[in-house]
Amino acid sequence: MDKVERIGISLEKTLLSAFDELIEQQGYQNRSEAIRDLIRHKIGRKRLANPKARAVAAVLVVYEHHSTKLMEKLTALQHSSLLQVISSMHIHLDDHDCLELIVLRGRVGEINKLAEKIISLKGVKLGRINLVAAQTA
Amino acid sequence: MDKVERIGISLEKTLLSAFDELIEQQGYQNRSEAIRDLIRHKIGRKRLANPKARAVAAVLVVYEHHSTKLMEKLTALQHSSLLQVISSMHIHLDDHDCLELIVLRGRVGEINKLAEKIISLKGVKLGRINLVAAQTA
Amino acid sequence: MDKVERIGISLEKTLLSAFDELIEQQGYQNRSEAIRDLIRHKIGRKRLANPKARAVAAVLVVYEHHSTKLMEKLTALQHSSLLQVISSMHIHLDDHDCLELIVLRGRVGEINKLAEKIISLKGVKLGRINLVAAQTA
Amino acid sequence: MDKVERIGISLEKTLLSAFDELIEQQGYQNRSEAIRDLIRHKIGRKRLANPKARAVAAVLVVYEHHSTKLMEKLTALQHSSLLQVISSMHIHLDDHDCLELIVLRGRVGEINKLAEKIISLKGVKLGRINLVAAQTA
Repeated sequence: MDKVERIGISLEKTLLSAFDELIEQQGYQNRSEAIRDLIRHKIGRKRLANPKARAVAAVLVVYEHHSTKLMEKLTALQHSSLLQVISSMHIHLDDHDCLELIVLRGRVGEINKLAEKIISLKGVKLGRINLVAAQTA
Repeated sequence: MDKVERIGISLEKTLLSAFDELIEQQGYQNRSEAIRDLIRHKIGRKRLANPKARAVAAVLVVYEHHSTKLMEKLTALQHSSLLQVISSMHIHLDDHDCLELIVLRGRVGEINKLAEKIISLKGVKLGRINLVAAQTA
Repeated sequence: MDKVERIGISLEKTLLSAFDELIEQQGYQNRSEAIRDLIRHKIGRKRLANPKARAVAAVLVVYEHHSTKLMEKLTALQHSSLLQVISSMHIHLDDHDCLELIVLRGRVGEINKLAEKIISLKGVKLGRINLVAAQTA
Repeated sequence: MDKVERIGISLEKTLLSAFDELIEQQGYQNRSEAIRDLIRHKIGRKRLANPKARAVAAVLVVYEHHSTKLMEKLTALQHSSLLQVISSMHIHLDDHDCLELIVLRGRVGEINKLAEKIISLKGVKLGRINLVAAQTA
């Protein structure tokens, strides 16, 4: 178990009131809980700026059924040693289009490289990479 | 079946060469195919700016396990008449965090309202809405 | 002058160490200063989600010289009672294109409406709205 | 002067109707003009994915007056050989905050590196890089 420390911070009264109002709306029980979340979020975003950081990403691709090249690319991806697919979901949008959601683990740099490749393929209408979490290990 | 029309367009030689090079890289067989994709993409984005347009969206939420309020909210969502959940996927990221991917249909305006609500909940570390497709009907 | 209050918060030792390392890199003198910034940022983003909040925005438009309609629109904007232009900057990018940077004040909802209008004009290659600050008053 | 070529393209009647409606709204005089814009836009975005491409970027920074480190950084930037500042604009937002808009030229990779550095400085509330144009030369 991680040891808990107690620190003191000072801030303007008006800022504190605005913060108290906000965290009550969000459902926090106390200030410590809310500030811990702010700090974790900040550290997480900082890590995602480092291309070598390990991260989880959600890749979204909207494409035409008939884009066979994309299919091959996505299959190849599942055998890549640099990116590891955790889970994927396929949705039939309409007569022409599919949505593929792929959750994968890998280095931020590798994930971004993949994004560029997928987006530039024929038949891809939308390709987006959401870096969702950075990991320490 | 939709009838096909043929139109003529004029463009500068250097622009055409750059375009030909790009579409070859992307795997298009001819210019018509590539221009059709550009036009569809343009029309799709235009539609997504209209709050009343029907769309499909992928909602991503990274949150702490213990965020019971969020769980209730996401469950309530599945019974909402304004937004219809097509599919969802739950991923265990680590000891603290989960990733929930929800694909839903609804009006652009309703989808955006939902986004704000989810993001402002306690324990939500990341919440993102990806509008992935607009529909005519 | 705003009165300063002192509050105590508790957090895990590992989280505190990671935070201390981060804020030292960023040049903060103490934790209070860094946490105040996190709180202000959080409150600011929350406000920007409210269409009625007063905000400052930086509008970027890249367009062709010859787009006279856009010129008229941008001029009309400067006489609008809903949005007030603070400052603007015009940059000649190359033989064809200009970059116009406009800083304005107004309600978040009005600013977003303007964005859609500008982006949909002929000759506009890029149009982006950066909401940069929300104001209390 | 660049020579103009004429090409023929085929597309579905319903797609053509939707396109005609859209370009009339935007103020285009004919389809060639609108398609040329789509192609230029596509080529531009493709170039911006290449870290070595030369680009123009608009950097936005909202920060506290007293952030002296940031001031030094921004001044140092103006003497950098990798990034060339074209123009800049300073706006006094309120008692605490300033908005600095900097337009610069440089390689996409160098511009992105700068972004990370600026955003991580103390007192920076918002830092955003808008890549606005890629250049051939």
